[in-house]
Amino acid sequence: MERAVRELWAESRDLLGLHSPEAAAVSRAETPPTPLAFLRDHVSPGRPLLVSSAATRHWPAASLWPTDSYLTDALRSTAVSLHLTPDGRADALAPHTRLPGVKCFASAHVHQVDFPTAVRLIRGSDPGSGLVAYAQQQDDCLRGGYAAVAGDVDPHVPWASKALGCLPEAVNLWIGSACSQTSFHKDHYDNIYVVVSGEKHFLLLPPTEHHRLYVRDYPAANYVAEQEREGELRLKLEVEDPERIVPWSSVDPYPPSPEETAAQVSSFPLYFEGPRPIHCTVRAGEMLYLPSMWFHHVSQSPGPNGLTIAVNYWYDMQFDIKYAYFNFLRSLAIDDNSSKKTDALEGDLEETNN
Amino acid sequence: MERAVRELWAESRDLLGLHSPEAAAVSRAETPPTPLAFLRDHVSPGRPLLVSSAATRHWPAASLWPTDSYLTDALRSTAVSLHLTPDGRADALAPHTRLPGVKCFASAHVHQVDFPTAVRLIRGSDPGSGLVAYAQQQDDCLRGGYAAVAGDVDPHVPWASKALGCLPEAVNLWIGSACSQTSFHKDHYDNIYVVVSGEKHFLLLPPTEHHRLYVRDYPAANYVAEQEREGELRLKLEVEDPERIVPWSSVDPYPPSPEETAAQVSSFPLYFEGPRPIHCTVRAGEMLYLPSMWFHHVSQSPGPNGLTIAVNYWYDMQFDIKYAYFNFLRSLAIDDNSSKKTDALEGDLEETNN
Repeated sequence: MERAVRELWAESRDLLGLHSPEAAAVSRAETPPTPLAFLRDHVSPGRPLLVSSAATRHWPAASLWPTDSYLTDALRSTAVSLHLTPDGRADALAPHTRLPGVKCFASAHVHQVDFPTAVRLIRGSDPGSGLVAYAQQQDDCLRGGYAAVAGDVDPHVPWASKALGCLPEAVNLWIGSACSQTSFHKDHYDNIYVVVSGEKHFLLLPPTEHHRLYVRDYPAANYVAEQEREGELRLKLEVEDPERIVPWSSVDPYPPSPEETAAQVSSFPLYFEGPRPIHCTVRAGEMLYLPSMWFHHVSQSPGPNGLTIAVNYWYDMQFDIKYAYFNFLRSLAIDDNSSKKTDALEGDLEETNN
Repeated sequence: MERAVRELWAESRDLLGLHSPEAAAVSRAETPPTPLAFLRDHVSPGRPLLVSSAATRHWPAASLWPTDSYLTDALRSTAVSLHLTPDGRADALAPHTRLPGVKCFASAHVHQVDFPTAVRLIRGSDPGSGLVAYAQQQDDCLRGGYAAVAGDVDPHVPWASKALGCLPEAVNLWIGSACSQTSFHKDHYDNIYVVVSGEKHFLLLPPTEHHRLYVRDYPAANYVAEQEREGELRLKLEVEDPERIVPWSSVDPYPPSPEETAAQVSSFPLYFEGPRPIHCTVRAGEMLYLPSMWFHHVSQSPGPNGLTIAVNYWYDMQFDIKYAYFNFLRSLAIDDNSSKKTDALEGDLEETNN
């Protein structure tokens, strides 16, 4: 089985035009594609596309949002659901609070603050002091809580809407710092991701490489504010009781220590010894089309205002034969070289973040 | 493995909108789709489409070709490569000439005649007398040998060409009778199949149902004209020497005898006991979009002139992630309930006819 799956990886990368392991890169367009070309060359085959900043030059957000004060002025009285973690890793694996050597799936503490406070906390994020803030509510927030500035960007992506035959299901605003990252996961949406300030760094794997992510079951846990004084929050992780299980990728592509690196490389050889993930940096003004079901890990660099600001448009995906094939692939156990039980590979990734 | 594959069959039929085994039918459009809708709703998901005769009402062929004499007049001096078999089964399995109980892959005897002779032989086809003729050359023949009447149909299918971003790689003319059928196979093309006279009856299976076709290796054989007198041809099957192997489907959905039916049902349970193939009759004037890699078996009924006449447009398919998934699926052995060796299921089907 492992040989057949490896051949699938190689053939799908080849057909996606990603055959050179050293130079595998997302294809780039200087101008937005026509709806037909987008559908034919990207959506249908499930092939990512990076569109240059020419596509968003007309957005008022392009010049306004990277400034120091525009957003804090425009959203002065807006309430924000801010996601707080000690280390910038929300919706990611963390050491279990009671069981040594076991990991759990840790979600952020969601803290309601006004927008200026949120920006202050995001800018002041520091894993050293145990507090990293990320405004990453994914509930169509740009058209909801942030409606006052929604007019600064296009309400949808015209060529994508025409190609896909629908308007976005959700439009989200993301404001973070270099301290935040998003662990490997996939979404059941076709995603157009636009960076407005700073840069986003994506690590991508096609859906065919599911087994390389070692999706396993983890107990859910949440950061809670243990003590909360004026201007200070101390977070503590609590595993949910009764237990709730979340299937999640075991792979951390950037382990925080040499020991953790060694453990990752030996436990997850299909990831660390397989074909290189596709790196894609999305710069301010650029748009990334990320096809549904692609695995992605995201880290970021701030823009001139100390913030990484992005908008994404989620379009309902088409559940078609590709989806049926993916589920079939996922249902198959693969013998890897590690001693891990292979039936633990059959889980799925929830779509809790992006 | 068999359980996972059966779940793939069920899920892919469900996602293709073919979930009702009794009523599974190709979706039908009264007018041609827009290029975007065709690409999004049919090409990308690999979903067949039947377009009503409104789409070809403007073709001169619609009224001219079903008449008795138009084509024989227009093509009086045209040479035709006519495919002759004793039973109407070209490119199909037949009993091996020397090995009892073994089958071989039999190709037609190709006979050069003028067009009026071809039509006479097609009309006079009779398995009882051991001669069935079918004009089914698949070498872009409408734009080649039949160029004198190519202007009677559209040179391409505008909405398909725009959607697929290319013109047809081949346009073929097919002239046959009720005696000819085409065995299960698939093509590496997106196919637009237009019936001009009579009806074509398709049995369809999605690519995900590969294992149900029991593709196995067969020695190639050819019908040769043993003796050829004025107006009479006697065909004899000869197995190729040195041996040449053709992987082909073992399944005959319409076995010619009760004994053969019993043998088929017991040998190929995944076909005969699995979900029903999708039946689709294409009537004069109608167009069937058959996505690449779909398995199809074709039989036919003649029109008022005693002939079944069709034109098909082959467009180069996109080799994308669906194709990689198909090859992966094909590489997997499946344990069926019969005693047949499962490794014989891993072959491919050549694309020698339609």
